Order: sequence, then C-alpha cells, then structure tokens
Amino acid sequence: MNKASYGDRDPIAAVATVPGQSALAVIRTSGATSIELTASVFSRPLTLKKSSGNTVVHGWINDPLTKKKIDEVLICVYRSPKSFTGEDSADISCHGGIASVKAIMSVLKSAGFREALPGEFSFRSFMNGKTDLTRAESVMELVSAKTNRAREQAVRRLNGVFYDEVSEVKNLLVKVLAGAEIYLDYSEDEFTGTADDESSGKLPDMDIAESALAKLKCLSELWQHERIYAEGALAVIAGRPNAGKSSLFNCLVREDRSIVTDIPGTTRDWIEALISVEDIPLRLIDTAGLRIISGLAHDESDPELMGIQRSFELLESADLVLYVIDGTAGIGPEDRNFINSRTQKPLIIVWNKADLAKPMASLPERLKVPGNEKFPKLLAVSAKTGEGIADLLHSVADILEKSEASANPDLSEMILSGNAAGPGTARQKELIDNAIVSVEEALAMADHLQPLELIAPLLRAAVDALGEITGEVSNADVLEVMFSRFCVGK
Amino acid sequence: MNKASYGDRDPIAAVATVPGQSALAVIRTSGATSIELTASVFSRPLTLKKSSGNTVVHGWINDPLTKKKIDEVLICVYRSPKSFTGEDSADISCHGGIASVKAIMSVLKSAGFREALPGEFSFRSFMNGKTDLTRAESVMELVSAKTNRAREQAVRRLNGVFYDEVSEVKNLLVKVLAGAEIYLDYSEDEFTGTADDESSGKLPDMDIAESALAKLKCLSELWQHERIYAEGALAVIAGRPNAGKSSLFNCLVREDRSIVTDIPGTTRDWIEALISVEDIPLRLIDTAGLRIISGLAHDESDPELMGIQRSFELLESADLVLYVIDGTAGIGPEDRNFINSRTQKPLIIVWNKADLAKPMASLPERLKVPGNEKFPKLLAVSAKTGEGIADLLHSVADILEKSEASANPDLSEMILSGNAAGPGTARQKELIDNAIVSVEEALAMADHLQPLELIAPLLRAAVDALGEITGEVSNADVLEVMFSRFCVGK
Repeated sequence: MNKASYGDRDPIAAVATVPGQSALAVIRTSGATSIELTASVFSRPLTLKKSSGNTVVHGWINDPLTKKKIDEVLICVYRSPKSFTGEDSADISCHGGIASVKAIMSVLKSAGFREALPGEFSFRSFMNGKTDLTRAESVMELVSAKTNRAREQAVRRLNGVFYDEVSEVKNLLVKVLAGAEIYLDYSEDEFTGTADDESSGKLPDMDIAESALAKLKCLSELWQHERIYAEGALAVIAGRPNAGKSSLFNCLVREDRSIVTDIPGTTRDWIEALISVEDIPLRLIDTAGLRIISGLAHDESDPELMGIQRSFELLESADLVLYVIDGTAGIGPEDRNFINSRTQKPLIIVWNKADLAKPMASLPERLKVPGNEKFPKLLAVSAKTGEGIADLLHSVADILEKSEASANPDLSEMILSGNAAGPGTARQKELIDNAIVSVEEALAMADHLQPLELIAPLLRAAVDALGEITGEVSNADVLEVMFSRFCVGK
Repeated sequence: MNKASYGDRDPIAAVATVPGQSALAVIRTSGATSIELTASVFSRPLTLKKSSGNTVVHGWINDPLTKKKIDEVLICVYRSPKSFTGEDSADISCHGGIASVKAIMSVLKSAGFREALPGEFSFRSFMNGKTDLTRAESVMELVSAKTNRAREQAVRRLNGVFYDEVSEVKNLLVKVLAGAEIYLDYSEDEFTGTADDESSGKLPDMDIAESALAKLKCLSELWQHERIYAEGALAVIAGRPNAGKSSLFNCLVREDRSIVTDIPGTTRDWIEALISVEDIPLRLIDTAGLRIISGLAHDESDPELMGIQRSFELLESADLVLYVIDGTAGIGPEDRNFINSRTQKPLIIVWNKADLAKPMASLPERLKVPGNEKFPKLLAVSAKTGEGIADLLHSVADILEKSEASANPDLSEMILSGNAAGPGTARQKELIDNAIVSVEEALAMADHLQPLELIAPLLRAAVDALGEITGEVSNADVLEVMFSRFCVGK
C-alpha cells in the first residue's frame, strides 16, 4: 500500500472514542468500499451489504482467519452522500475496553482498511462539500471545550454563525471590488492610455468598505474576548507558610466543583486543580510545597534553589496571583517585598482569616503604587467560614475577562446578544487580521486618491483571506497542516 | 422523584464512553418513554418519534428553555423488545469532550431522565430476559480485558459457552435429582413408615452425578488457569545498585510494547509499566529508587527505613522477582543474602551483561537449595544486545502460568480446544465450588448408604447454585450488589 495521504480515497478506520474502560467504544470507517469491507468481518455480511443508509445492524465482528468471534457490535450504516464524510461508512459500536477495540481495529486492517490520519474524516467531509472550514474547526474546539461558555462559542461556529458573519463581510467587499472593477473596465473603454486621473480616489461604495472594516474589527476583538473562555487562565496562590494557602485552595475548589479534576502528572511540588470561575476554566495552583520568596538574591548552591526557580517560573506565567495574608498576623516585611515586586501585574491580596481580624480600612490605599490604580487589589475573606469567597471569585473573573472589549459599543452589543461568533482558531484570527490590514490600506489609499488599479488588488486580497477562512479559497498544504492537528477519529 | 432503584421503570440516561477529548461520545438512554423524552430536546421531534427501530436520525440537541442549540448529534433509535435492555431506547452519539456531554446530560435530566445507576442497562437487559447473568458479567470482563487472551476468554462467555457448560452440568444433576425423587415418591407409595432400608444408597444415575462432578471440577480449575490472563501478575526487578535494573526494565518494556502504559499516579519511588508477556498482563516494577536490602536488622530511626519498608512490601506482594546480577561483577555476599532469603519463592536470577561475561556452568546448581528444584532459576541475558531476553520472557510466562493445571487430562483437553470457558467472576467460581461441595457430599453419602431423603436436598442445592450462576435462581439483593459493580452506562 502506498503511504497514506489526505488526498487519497483509501477506506479508512479509526477509534473515535477515548480509549479505556467504558460501556461502549466507537470505531468509525469511511470510503466507497467501507461497508463491503466491514461486511467481510461481520457475522451477517449480506444483511449489512444490503442495508440502507441510517440503519443499525446487530451482529458479531469475526476474525475471518481464525473464525473466532471478536465482539458483539452494532453497526450504523451510512450511504453516500448522507454521511459525515459524504462517503459510504459503517460505524461500529463495540464494547468499551482496550482489548476489544484493538482486536477489531486489527481485523479491519487485515480486511483492507488503513488507520485514518488525524482529522481525515473531517478532511473528507470538507473535500466532499459537507462542511466548510469554520464548521470543521469548530468541532475540535467543541471537543476541547472545558466550560459551558466555551462550548456555546464553539456550537455557534458549528452552527455556521461565524461562517455567515464572514460571508456577509466578504459579500460586502465583493460588492465594493465589483464596483471598482466595473469602474476600471469602464475607464479603460472610455480612454485609451492611462486612466489614472479619472479613476483616482473614486472608490465607489467606500462606506460599504468602511462598514465591512468595522465588522472585521469586531470579529477580531471578539477573539480576544472569547479566548479566555476557551483557553482558560492560570492563577497561582502564593503567600508565607501558614498564611492559609491550602485552605484557600480547598475552599475555592469546593466552591466551584464544576470541573474539579486532579491533573495527573509526574512528581510535583505543588497541587493544582482545574476549576471553572464564571465559566472561565482556571488552572489553580497552590504552591504549598514551594518556598515562594520575594526576589532577594540567593546563594546559587542552595539546594532549595531549584524549587525556588520553579516557583518563580509559575509566578511569571501566571495570569493572576492570589497572595494570601494571615489576617491575624497582618502584613509583614516579606509580604511587602513580594507585593512590591509585582506592582504592575494582576495581583489580588487575599486577607485571610477575616472572621478573626479585619484589615484596616486604610490598608488598600496604602498598598497602591502611584501609576497603577488597578493592582494590587485587596479582598478580605475567610477560607474557614466562606465569607468573601464569592466576591473573590467574581473579582478573579472580572480581572481575567479584561473588560476593555466593552470600549467598542458594536462589540458590546454583539457580545450581549449572545449570538455572535468570532474566530475560533488562530488561523481564522490571522486571516481576519490580514483582511483588516488589506481593507485599511485600501481605504487609506482611496483617501490619498491613489489609482483604483492599486486599490483593487488589496480588496481582492481581503476577499481571498476571508475565502480562506471558510475554505472557498484553499491550498492543499495548508489544509493538510490544519487537519493534521485534529484528533484521530475526527 | 423517588430514590432511584434497580427495580423501577424510570427513563434512564448515562454516558457510555470514557469522558475526555475525542471525536465522539455516546449517551445511552432506556425506558418506555425514552424516545419521546429525547424528542422533547431534539430539533426533529416528529421524525424521531415516528422513526422505526434500528434507524439513525440526524439533528441537534436543543435546550428547550433557552432555545439554544447544544450539539449536533446522531440518534440511534431502538424499539422494544429489539434493544439492549429490551425497552425502547435512544442512543445519542454527540461530539466528544466534557462540556458537550455534560450539557446534553443536563437537558436530558430536565426532560425527565434520571442518571442511570451503575450496570442498570445490563440489569434491565437481564430482567427483561435479554441476557443471562454469565453473559451480563462477561461484558464487564471484556471491558477490563488487558490482553487479547483475556478478551477471548470474556468473548467465549459473552457468546454463551460458559452458560452452555453450566446448563449441561445442571441438566445432568437435574436428571439425577429427578431419578432420586421418583424413587423417593415410589418408595413412599409402596411402603408406609420409613423407607430407609429400601432407598439407602440406591442413588440412581450415580455415574451421571460423578461425570457432572468431574465437569464442575474442570470448570473450577479453569478459573485458576484463566485468572492470570484477566488479572495479570506483578513482577519486581530487584538487585544491587548498577546491576542494570533499569536497563533490563527498559529492554523488557521495549521488547513487548503491546500495552506499554505509564501508569499515572502520585509521587513514587519506583517506575512501573504494564506490559503483556505471552498475553499475560504484567505489572513490571523497577525498584530503581528503592534500596533493596537483604533482610538484615536495621535501626528503626533510619530515615531510609520507609523506602526499605516499601520495597519489602513490593517484594512480598510480587508474583515473581527478577533479581539482576551484574555479570561482570558476579554474585557477591549481598546478592547471596537476598537469594537465600527467598529460596521458596518464584525468583529468576537475571545474569545481566552476558555479552561481556557468561556465568559459570556450575552456578545454577550451586544456587539451588535442597527441596526446591524450581527456584531460583538462572538466566543469562544482555539488556544491551537483547541476548536471552526472549528466553527470559518465556520463562516469566511459564512460571506465571502455573502449569499444574495440565495434571488433569480433561482440563488440558478443554484448554487446548480453545473453546472452553470457566467461571469469569469470583461469584461464579464460588457457586461452582458450592455445587462441587454439595455433589461430593451427596456422592459420599450415597457411598455410605445414607437415605435418599438426605441426599436429594444436596443435589437440589447444587442445582440451585448452578441456577444462580445463570440467574434462573436469583435474589434481588444479590443482583443489586452484582450489577452495582458494573460501570455506569453499562
């Protein structure tokens, strides 16, 4: 068999569910011969071969060589073009567990299937016109969505909202471009020789181009706004020993157990959990086992240096630091050192044990540094009684949401409507930004009365960039790179 | 809603695939109203409600409250009695990923489903006469099978092989019992008063009872033989520092990568991998970070004591120890101490670096202890060149298989046929053993010419034990305990 490639028409098979012990697992197949090949390892080959699309057949997968039964399965038959890929396909629902899935994949390969490349089902779906690239990519977003809001964003794109938005802007630009090209054609007919003077700056439908630009900018900004929900953020809990870091960690994890997962990993000196704060996935780290220090010089031979180095790296990569103070002890010199070392960064001082001792009213003001009114922020809580924890979570969400987005009234309206969808991937965002640059340049040139011959190609570039987002304009290499990032079985 | 219980007829729903990022996930539902309830959150309710069994419907799951789309899905419709549970059911195949699955489960619950209890689908399948207990239990075996052989064993039971064997033995015993009861009835009719003398020892069909007993014993022994393939074994690599423990570990893991998995866990002082040695799942542990010592007394305050304690525990629970010797250094006093401390236990001395230095021919004999010809076993290998590794793996499998089973010719024949199936669970094994005890006792009493009135109840107990295996005789509490050990969604 030749080397597998995205362009071929081989019958393909792949496990589409997470491997492991479970009631069911699904093995997906696709290709013109997929139903026939599956039938060759199935206990009821004739029934399977003659079954119509969208039907389910019960039987056993057998090993044709040993004649042994492998597993009792249900096979969903799909007939071209009414299938995910647009090709015939047979999806095998077998018992969960690693051994069954392996054994079935093995007989399928002997029967003539090859293992699907990552994203190859989606690739075929796109190539067969069953989906556009924005929808195809949204599936991967959906699969990795960690909170409900990230899921909703992805579903809007899966439902074609972003596709429609991009198409709308593209249609506007196509209109502007068409106007410009007609004008150019007309000019050439009318005058022989250069038509520069006549065509200069006379970009028709300039207002349409401007409204297209405004929409593109909204879409681009929407990306910033939506990213935090999809990608989440990192919050590090720091503080002196016994300030109550672990109590705060446990309290926050308890408060919002929507996605509490112990992230399995190798040896770690810290504890972490993935929680969801107002639908923002937040990796919360308790540096319990790390000695957080305040930036003083240290002896490099210190055996604790490695731990300290690691704690610095965590603090540097944090989107937000929660610095815990023992309210009954108050702010000491070590705390001040730490706070002063991070004056320009998102920092919440968590005054813990507020049930026993409240912070002085003047304290927040005294901690402020001139030039930064935002941080540090001080909040009094009690990890023990839960007092102030809801406020703390709300502040965390507020800081992470970076509400600058609301500066743009159009964008605010889009976000509030709950029906807008920005780019879902870096690829889409980059192409939106490319389109913005081209349209801005076109408008600037029009402003400076530059010839339409120079402006039209910029508009064309913007239209092409938008076409690349949806896949109307595409390049085999780009597609391959894109789909190869999908998971296997997708 | 009342508390969920296995006996009720509530519409139930559960995720049937492993949670995580994947192309697909499956949510299973069951119950008389399951299709209607699913339709209430589906974009094409009428199509779904009127679709016939074993068909697939494409559409969206919607939130009826917010009217928002939740995910694009395929729904497999099954109509009673042609479904897994025997009830109507709608299996939802949605996009993989945690958020989608959670969102769909949430609207299903609002629609009127309750979350299924563990094993509840299988429980309903059993209660509705779709399966017997041996088949139901085999599914959980199948799901947790780690090697192909364990899978094959489970599939034989799923296919009813064990059910047939048990039924066959049960029928034999029923025949014996019937003969005895006819005789008893006859005796009672014929003689008034005690019939002891007449009925004593006259157990008809004694030979049939004996052949039933032989078959039961084969089934019981088969359990011992099959267990190792399902449950696997633990092999610990020990040896002095620098003997080559890690090299051997890496070499064995490389040699057989069929199920190499890094078992995720918390901080550990040792390295472990799950490999498959001739289809036996083997947890292989390299005690690299542990100081293995030879059983000498130690100061309890020694800070290394905890690690040493742990290494002892590992060695004690090991089914086999691979003790690595640096062949270029030879066997030293510490090695001898270790070897002498484990003379009665499965121990292979792995003479490493055999490419550089071979062991003396007389060495294996000199290491033997009188009274144990089996252990220690000495094998020369080179973890570097791979020399001897295949032999080592074969010896490991040989030792773990505990080939005593072949002492019984009937059993050997059953095993060789590849078509036998012993008990798949401890529950089944215990009931087989109960039946054996009862039949043995019945035969012994018959031998001693005891009255049939006393023998018949023993035969009845054996028949009942076998009926409990298949579920013909059942007890609600026992069933609940049994099914509650299944996974959710099964």
